[in-house]
Amino acid sequence: MESVKLFGTWCSPYSRRVEMALKLKGVEYEYVEEDLKNKSPDLLKYNPVHKKVPLLLHNGKPISESLLILEYIDETWSGPAILPSDPYDRAMARFWAKFLDEKCWPAMIRACMRTGEEQEKANEEANEVLTFLENKLIGKKFFGGDTIGLVDITANLIAHWHRFFEEFSEIMQPPLITKEKFPNICEWVNDYTNCSFVKENLPEKDKLAQLYKARIQAAKAAAQ
Amino acid sequence: MESVKLFGTWCSPYSRRVEMALKLKGVEYEYVEEDLKNKSPDLLKYNPVHKKVPLLLHNGKPISESLLILEYIDETWSGPAILPSDPYDRAMARFWAKFLDEKCWPAMIRACMRTGEEQEKANEEANEVLTFLENKLIGKKFFGGDTIGLVDITANLIAHWHRFFEEFSEIMQPPLITKEKFPNICEWVNDYTNCSFVKENLPEKDKLAQLYKARIQAAKAAAQ
Repeated sequence: MESVKLFGTWCSPYSRRVEMALKLKGVEYEYVEEDLKNKSPDLLKYNPVHKKVPLLLHNGKPISESLLILEYIDETWSGPAILPSDPYDRAMARFWAKFLDEKCWPAMIRACMRTGEEQEKANEEANEVLTFLENKLIGKKFFGGDTIGLVDITANLIAHWHRFFEEFSEIMQPPLITKEKFPNICEWVNDYTNCSFVKENLPEKDKLAQLYKARIQAAKAAAQ
Repeated sequence: MESVKLFGTWCSPYSRRVEMALKLKGVEYEYVEEDLKNKSPDLLKYNPVHKKVPLLLHNGKPISESLLILEYIDETWSGPAILPSDPYDRAMARFWAKFLDEKCWPAMIRACMRTGEEQEKANEEANEVLTFLENKLIGKKFFGGDTIGLVDITANLIAHWHRFFEEFSEIMQPPLITKEKFPNICEWVNDYTNCSFVKENLPEKDKLAQLYKARIQAAKAAAQ
């Protein structure tokens, strides 16, 4: 019998990506909640390089790194496609997913965390990366076109987690993402977070808000 | 008629990866040498996000980021496979390629550039990441098994570029990679760099040595 086990943490956008992909494909799986302050022997054994969640264990074989797990899930199980079939479209999906993780999200965090003169520059950078995404959505409902794909699942950071960062950093006035500046992104957030399999796999708002509030306060206290 | 154009720089291990993959597949291409201090309008037009080489232009469509280009080449042209066909093996190839770029190479550079107490820690980290690679080669000629694959092409950094860093940083005594510590890696370097399509696509040693010497001296002068 097939065994699928996911090691994750409830608040991680990276773990949630994997849950969304498994749900999209209709794959049954066992979920193991990890305490990152006291990692399980299984996590350390199966992910000795990064020692991080998410970790997918499929018939005893470990796969880590959320974007690589999404590709593995797409190549292993049938059901709605996560990546497009055309090689060029696949390259573009991989490119924008990587862009979200490596360029876009770090720029958004910097904009929410920096103050004074530094913030102006960080804001400019965040606006620049978000403009690329805004333009990717021209004439499209999702980054994947008519259906949700790799880039949409990766962008769950923007759809859900970002608002908590923005709310509790208290320095983002006006907010980074507004209907006036980024109408396509705002519409996408709405369409995406209202898809049933996405909605069911986003962490509860109040719980996430509480966690982010505490984290940001701790970061500020440490910086003083 | 098919048009394949590669924008690169002669000394970049990332550009060279793409050249190796195109040569492995037997794809004819036009090479455009970029001056990174004065980037061409085409590079800026086709890679507006990163403005970097390598950039592949296939029938007018741009693809950037070396690892994504390698996957695109593998999916587009027939010939020797760059990625394995099994989904799990593919996930592992992607994992180790990413590991090389994001974890291994930065750790090796730190070990070659730091001094004093910092160097000890950097050395330890570099040894740790290299041990992972050493173990990946147990019982195998190449990271790809009997033939060269994604991880081998990505690891050209270690096979060729690393020695120049080590030579001119002057602080790596004993060297990071020795036959005693990493016999499998040393054997792999030898096997890999003696493959004809690899050998023909490595930058000339003297020219690379001269460049690295100047770069490292400039970095040291700036740090003083």
